[in-house]
Amino acid sequence: MSEILRQQLEKITPLTDKEFDYILSHFTIKKLKKHQFLIQEGDIVHNDHFVIKGLLKAYYVNQDGKEHIMQFGMEDWWITDYQAYFNESKATLNIDCIEATEVLCLSLHNREKLCADMHKIEHFFRKKSSSGYVALQRRILSLLNSNAKERYEQLLQQYPKLFQRVPKTLIASYLGVSRETLSRFSS
Amino acid sequence: MSEILRQQLEKITPLTDKEFDYILSHFTIKKLKKHQFLIQEGDIVHNDHFVIKGLLKAYYVNQDGKEHIMQFGMEDWWITDYQAYFNESKATLNIDCIEATEVLCLSLHNREKLCADMHKIEHFFRKKSSSGYVALQRRILSLLNSNAKERYEQLLQQYPKLFQRVPKTLIASYLGVSRETLSRFSS
Repeated sequence: MSEILRQQLEKITPLTDKEFDYILSHFTIKKLKKHQFLIQEGDIVHNDHFVIKGLLKAYYVNQDGKEHIMQFGMEDWWITDYQAYFNESKATLNIDCIEATEVLCLSLHNREKLCADMHKIEHFFRKKSSSGYVALQRRILSLLNSNAKERYEQLLQQYPKLFQRVPKTLIASYLGVSRETLSRFSS
Repeated sequence: MSEILRQQLEKITPLTDKEFDYILSHFTIKKLKKHQFLIQEGDIVHNDHFVIKGLLKAYYVNQDGKEHIMQFGMEDWWITDYQAYFNESKATLNIDCIEATEVLCLSLHNREKLCADMHKIEHFFRKKSSSGYVALQRRILSLLNSNAKERYEQLLQQYPKLFQRVPKTLIASYLGVSRETLSRFSS
């Protein structure tokens, strides 16, 4: 199961078996059932999570009880409440499982330790962070330049696999449009 | 003038004079007048820019000619079209100067070289990227949870100095609200 993590690491930096075993020893595995919470609002967030199996959503619930989806997580993706994780503070997001899920958990302490021990892991996380930053900028632009149809089509093009697994209601919540608006161009 | 860069680096990692001189030797300086462009849509983006003096805006112009501001840049901030920079591709954003500006330019080649040469610089950019990622997630949440007044107040609280320097029209464009909406709660 951990091969999927190794593949992702090795897309950025080659590793010996010994190095990978050392890295892996800093992770713990967690299994969750469908609908179970990985993180609930108000929890102290200890871990970042690399998804080895399953599908999750990270979302914010506003004062009116409306859900806004910050991100999805599926195989080969990372997911947590990053603001809370990096600041070792309480979650403002909820993360729950759309499907039964298995994740590899990495504490902030272990992440920093790995990065300090191994320059190539610091390099890996810098590269991942930079790509993540660019992806979020694209999303901001698509939110500002708010043509719902274009946003829907961009998402479809970027993550075709998500669409086969995620209910339309959740896609609408991610895009910041109503379920009815989404129906107009997704049928 | 480069002291401001050293201060930012040293908030994350201590440096000897020799190390800082080595780092600085990878930057070039650029001076621009008010209204001058640092990057225009369609340019190949060679550099990231650390602002030592001045104020800039990075923005997208949509098909109807409407401007959406992606980010501002002022002293001690970094600014470029990151998607184009990291992919060494053409800019989709424009960046111009709201005030006369001086920036230190770092090419992607020199950034990667510094990161490979010096583990502590890789560490610096990983930390900066992680904080940047969290800041963008917060902005996405505020765009999704679209109460314009709250968004305005968050921005005011986060970046009080920006408000003294940036015209209201540009603040509105950053927040994704009309100038009229902004006027209702900013007067």
